[in-house]
Amino acid sequence: MNTSNSLANIRVVLVETSHPGNLGAVARAMKVMGLTNLALVNPKCEIDDEARARASGAADVLENAAIHTSLDAALADVVLAAACTARRRDLPHPAYTPRQAAPKLLGIAATQPVALVFGSETFGLSNEQLMKCRWLLNIPSNPDYSSLNLGSAVQVLAYELRSSLDDAVLALPEFELAPHESEQALLVELEKTLIELGFLNPDNPKRLMPRLRRFFAKAGLEKDEVAIWRGVLSAVQASLKLRRSG
Amino acid sequence: MNTSNSLANIRVVLVETSHPGNLGAVARAMKVMGLTNLALVNPKCEIDDEARARASGAADVLENAAIHTSLDAALADVVLAAACTARRRDLPHPAYTPRQAAPKLLGIAATQPVALVFGSETFGLSNEQLMKCRWLLNIPSNPDYSSLNLGSAVQVLAYELRSSLDDAVLALPEFELAPHESEQALLVELEKTLIELGFLNPDNPKRLMPRLRRFFAKAGLEKDEVAIWRGVLSAVQASLKLRRSG
Repeated sequence: MNTSNSLANIRVVLVETSHPGNLGAVARAMKVMGLTNLALVNPKCEIDDEARARASGAADVLENAAIHTSLDAALADVVLAAACTARRRDLPHPAYTPRQAAPKLLGIAATQPVALVFGSETFGLSNEQLMKCRWLLNIPSNPDYSSLNLGSAVQVLAYELRSSLDDAVLALPEFELAPHESEQALLVELEKTLIELGFLNPDNPKRLMPRLRRFFAKAGLEKDEVAIWRGVLSAVQASLKLRRSG
Repeated sequence: MNTSNSLANIRVVLVETSHPGNLGAVARAMKVMGLTNLALVNPKCEIDDEARARASGAADVLENAAIHTSLDAALADVVLAAACTARRRDLPHPAYTPRQAAPKLLGIAATQPVALVFGSETFGLSNEQLMKCRWLLNIPSNPDYSSLNLGSAVQVLAYELRSSLDDAVLALPEFELAPHESEQALLVELEKTLIELGFLNPDNPKRLMPRLRRFFAKAGLEKDEVAIWRGVLSAVQASLKLRRSG
């Protein structure tokens, strides 16, 4: 097993970062643990001198960062996106500590790209952004002061991944997981179908889609399953068309 | 077992820190994991506005930091000092990863003070400073770029301690460990005695004292053992006096 492959397949995705110093700190935190793949979604600051100073010997990670205008674009090809968050939610996706998650992430990253997603310094990740991720990652912290710096949060995750490299049971996933893009498109299609069905009222959606998204998140959607679900939805839509035309 | 006791007994010791921002980052990294006990040895910078800004909600940790003029003073009452270092040495003290060390540190800190020692950003810890510590801590990192930021290094250690709180087998040490101050005084006395004995040539000391210090480090000197060793040294010195006077 080529361990550097696993690290190369792990993308750090920063959403709406506002402080250049944090961009630099994240780059250094990544490189020092062997991660190099950085993506910025709608950054609220420039990669400036402060960013490069804080990056120190990891300025190359900054220079090579991909910049995207949407989280979906940054995640398009990954098969698993894990969101780092301190918040607890009504309908939690599967949640892990970094220690629990690291070996699983490395196992998948041995052959397919995965992402760690971090929100802005002030607002974190929105519910909508969290729902696009399959896992939540909760870093253990002081309940009286849990305000982890962005660079520190990336450092902890990167450290866990590096520490787990040796221990990880790098079993290949038995089946190929579905890329984020096709999973999200399927869920949008599902929602559309449910609305067409009259089962989901777009003016009063309640918690239906969050529950369904959680269900898919827990399942760990595979490539072959996308085709199956697509087939199901197509069949439902065809029957609705028949009903309308009949 | 009161876990907050363990964290309260863990002191972070920063030697000759030169950047105020790093002081702040360290304070935040500590508090977010429940550590509050900070000691500065000959800081090369002030606790200024930049330090307080980077500390964010952990400025109280900075304000309460003890300031010392020597490493020995900062460690005087601790029973175990662990030095964080990326360097490898000819005669290594017992070396652990943070993951290996955390449960042991928490176990001892349940009843007695321990210290984590971090060197300056540019020079790290000198050999002399390292030899004053009983353990070395090596954070796993990228062999091609292992330049961990000071705040990040403290973050990783503090995170490991918090993560290990639940898992730790918080067995009380069977015997009370010797405070740093009495251990160091004993080793100085040992050296003096060896010189008096003519066994150690102060003009050509070779690796004798480092080897002996390592021996004591591995042993984990206990309080009662200090008295024993003191007795041995006194006996040797008495015989030398008799020889000289005889």
